[in-house]
Amino acid sequence: MIVSPLLMSLHTTVIEPRLTRSQAREFDRVDSQDSRVIVAGFGRVGQIVGRVLRMRRIPFTALESSVAQVDVVRRFGTKVYYGDASRLEVLQAAGAARAEVFVLAVEDVEASVRTAELVRRHFPHLKIMARARNRQHAIRLMDLGVRYLIRETYLSSLDLAQHTLEALGLTHNDAVESIRRFDVHDRKQLHVQREIRDDEQKLIQSTQQAARELEQLFESDTESTQAQQRRAEAS
Amino acid sequence: MIVSPLLMSLHTTVIEPRLTRSQAREFDRVDSQDSRVIVAGFGRVGQIVGRVLRMRRIPFTALESSVAQVDVVRRFGTKVYYGDASRLEVLQAAGAARAEVFVLAVEDVEASVRTAELVRRHFPHLKIMARARNRQHAIRLMDLGVRYLIRETYLSSLDLAQHTLEALGLTHNDAVESIRRFDVHDRKQLHVQREIRDDEQKLIQSTQQAARELEQLFESDTESTQAQQRRAEAS
Repeated sequence: MIVSPLLMSLHTTVIEPRLTRSQAREFDRVDSQDSRVIVAGFGRVGQIVGRVLRMRRIPFTALESSVAQVDVVRRFGTKVYYGDASRLEVLQAAGAARAEVFVLAVEDVEASVRTAELVRRHFPHLKIMARARNRQHAIRLMDLGVRYLIRETYLSSLDLAQHTLEALGLTHNDAVESIRRFDVHDRKQLHVQREIRDDEQKLIQSTQQAARELEQLFESDTESTQAQQRRAEAS
Repeated sequence: MIVSPLLMSLHTTVIEPRLTRSQAREFDRVDSQDSRVIVAGFGRVGQIVGRVLRMRRIPFTALESSVAQVDVVRRFGTKVYYGDASRLEVLQAAGAARAEVFVLAVEDVEASVRTAELVRRHFPHLKIMARARNRQHAIRLMDLGVRYLIRETYLSSLDLAQHTLEALGLTHNDAVESIRRFDVHDRKQLHVQREIRDDEQKLIQSTQQAARELEQLFESDTESTQAQQRRAEAS
């Protein structure tokens, strides 16, 4: 009994891609060759990008490597092709040679990195705009020279933090300014971590130091604000 | 050979929580009872919130139900307790009765909903600020009356879409305005979908209609801008 949910997951995650490639659905033939954008990965992130592009009537080709996901999205009226964007022939069929922008919205980290490598090697003219799972993934994509990347839960986390500060009684402006400073500091920190990524001891030191810096940022700010207030009161 | 990665995943996802509960590490005793905030779930999202709170020197208690995650985060110097926030005794020990804000940053959808229910029932004074995985999860949390929620990949997706528009040649202001309108429309759509969630046919119709509305939003805008320009040129 304990085995059955497991077998299901074995079926969908391991057997299907390995054993059924020959008899399963073949990759779709892509018929639109005039797309300015290729959206690779049509999950939560890719779908938002696709809807924005459709809103602005910008032609795009969406590729998704999960059959189930393709079928769901199609049921809701969006054109998306079943295909693995980390395979050269799929990219060629999707019109990568003529597109301008490549939106890398693949959820799986290894597939994302493989795809970025392939695009950089064979279609260096494409501007890669990438979704990253976390800091480590972001650093690997930076190394591959993607044009833009965003950590997938980063901005929602900042929004959640900002609203938490407001729920605790901070003014809206104070909360927004706190998040702005945190953001600047965090993005810098990502570049620092990129340099020392292979040295865990240094990473730990750097993280602890960054936390202290963040605290000091606000302490010195509070002090200088108070000093300004004192000066204003004294004058 | 094909079985071995599977057995590993069986071990970590099924056997471990079921069989080792008795002999595994017991939940930590929480010693800080003066926290204004409880952060439940200390993964990618919870950690950002925790770092922002620490930056502003606001005391919080972080709970995480994965031992491995707790150990990693502690190695980097953050205080986080091993405990399952969907259990009443853990919430009591974490000082839920005296806290003000409950940040629900648990990644697993079912654990998140269970925790929200528990907090609403036993600690109705707590302001719940929640991370949602997707639209369906967001709707379930709305039904439970959480104070604030954000879909975890939503804002990064909007940022990715905005930068994609700019990479295609739209001006920064035009791209930002496109995203602003999309956002307003999408949040409205979420409330519409909440009303008809159990009727797939209606959901499909509503989604297709929403896509048409979005396109028309920009068409009529372009027309009215052109009309204004014509009037300006004629005058």
